[in-house]
Amino acid sequence: MKLVTLRTRGGSGTAAARLDGETLTEIPGHADVGALLANENWREIARNATGSRHRLAEAELETVVPHPSKVLCTGLNYTSHIQEMGRDLPSYPTLFAKFADTLTGPTDSVAAVPEDPEMDWEGELGVVIGRTAYKVSEDEAGDCIAGFTVANDISMRGWQYRTTEWLQGKIWARSTPVGPFLVTPDEFDPATAVLRTTVNGAPVQEHGIADLLFTPAHLVAYVSTILPLHPGDLILTGTPGGVGRARTPRVYLTAGDVVAVTIDGIGGLSTPIV
Amino acid sequence: MKLVTLRTRGGSGTAAARLDGETLTEIPGHADVGALLANENWREIARNATGSRHRLAEAELETVVPHPSKVLCTGLNYTSHIQEMGRDLPSYPTLFAKFADTLTGPTDSVAAVPEDPEMDWEGELGVVIGRTAYKVSEDEAGDCIAGFTVANDISMRGWQYRTTEWLQGKIWARSTPVGPFLVTPDEFDPATAVLRTTVNGAPVQEHGIADLLFTPAHLVAYVSTILPLHPGDLILTGTPGGVGRARTPRVYLTAGDVVAVTIDGIGGLSTPIV
Repeated sequence: MKLVTLRTRGGSGTAAARLDGETLTEIPGHADVGALLANENWREIARNATGSRHRLAEAELETVVPHPSKVLCTGLNYTSHIQEMGRDLPSYPTLFAKFADTLTGPTDSVAAVPEDPEMDWEGELGVVIGRTAYKVSEDEAGDCIAGFTVANDISMRGWQYRTTEWLQGKIWARSTPVGPFLVTPDEFDPATAVLRTTVNGAPVQEHGIADLLFTPAHLVAYVSTILPLHPGDLILTGTPGGVGRARTPRVYLTAGDVVAVTIDGIGGLSTPIV
Repeated sequence: MKLVTLRTRGGSGTAAARLDGETLTEIPGHADVGALLANENWREIARNATGSRHRLAEAELETVVPHPSKVLCTGLNYTSHIQEMGRDLPSYPTLFAKFADTLTGPTDSVAAVPEDPEMDWEGELGVVIGRTAYKVSEDEAGDCIAGFTVANDISMRGWQYRTTEWLQGKIWARSTPVGPFLVTPDEFDPATAVLRTTVNGAPVQEHGIADLLFTPAHLVAYVSTILPLHPGDLILTGTPGGVGRARTPRVYLTAGDVVAVTIDGIGGLSTPIV
């Protein structure tokens, strides 16, 4: 099953919807995918919904969960990229945070900011929580995952490296596109899926999800040791090699660029920088 | 004016209340101080409220804003402490995040966790936002501050230093007491106020708020460059010298300890470790 959050009434409202082929069917009474996931029987509600229909091509999509109670992000998580950088594999995931105000829709533009010209891309697999997870094992964690999505952890590298803590380069308003779909685990194969990022159509990242050092279930279990994850909470799983800052010379995004991230079996983001 | 969030109905509900002397007066229709601050005219609503009364000594207090949309925290922010550590004064504040699930009430116990025996204290001044602040100047930022409170950024040092990013040692469930009161700026004098932390009654931190390198208004303006701060959002301003990890030998909190933090003009937290 694929779920989206749809913008309605010219963008002033939102609605959760189910995607079948090229048709979106609204799920009445649920303003977004996060509100839907707050119901224990969200799968049945979504499967049986018969609300207003829209053609996907004509719909405007919101970020898949607009109001998560928390967003956790992972650094350094693709084995081959860590090794090619000459580093040892880490024992623990590196975690940082984002806030709901940082998220934006899958085709929304993102504004270049005058304060930091070093805007970089990071294509990532996103994990959406579907059931409260607190101190769960890795086995149990799988059942707490509602599904997967795509994210671009667009980072302001200047501010990210002003101090040791990356946060201030990672939380700019409406700078992280997430979506378009939440795809349930039965329809996503992490063993074969490839993540691809392009800038103005040119490939810059292409990497198998299977190379993740800390898997989605491992990350959910790890975070759940610390504090509860709630339905709709997001975990971004880190980016593979190929970011702009790691190139020689360094390459950054500027107004006029279009950065796109796709993951096989989920779909893609396309983000004009303005 | 001093405001609190009160636990009602045996802890199953909460209510915003105003403190006059030793008497709390509920502010009807506002479940907590965050909900109150969402009203542009929150000062008038709070000042004129005439709801149920309680004696402060008999009231159970919730963390002052239970559901902030974001909590930003500051590292390394007391000038003399930075200098005594032999470091240069930083040009930019070091920022990290917490989540609402991390906060707890001003007299609640905090659980020692088996996963990390290195539980440390960090007494801090907290800033509560009262008006949306986005790209505001330092002058404008003062008007966006609803008031001040006290926080103990209890930190799990083992997990904090597992990676370069401190977050995973800073967000444990219900580990950060914040409160008891929001004190409006007209009743708080940062030029003379002293922060004191004790462990089992013994002083461990004692430092003037005036020594803050990045002031509350500076921090609000700085964060607001990045993303909007909303009413009820919290900024913790960092801790002075005297934490347990900086002692020789290192000292950590264990079950049975009581850690207390007070700031002149605001009030105090008292936290049994269990």
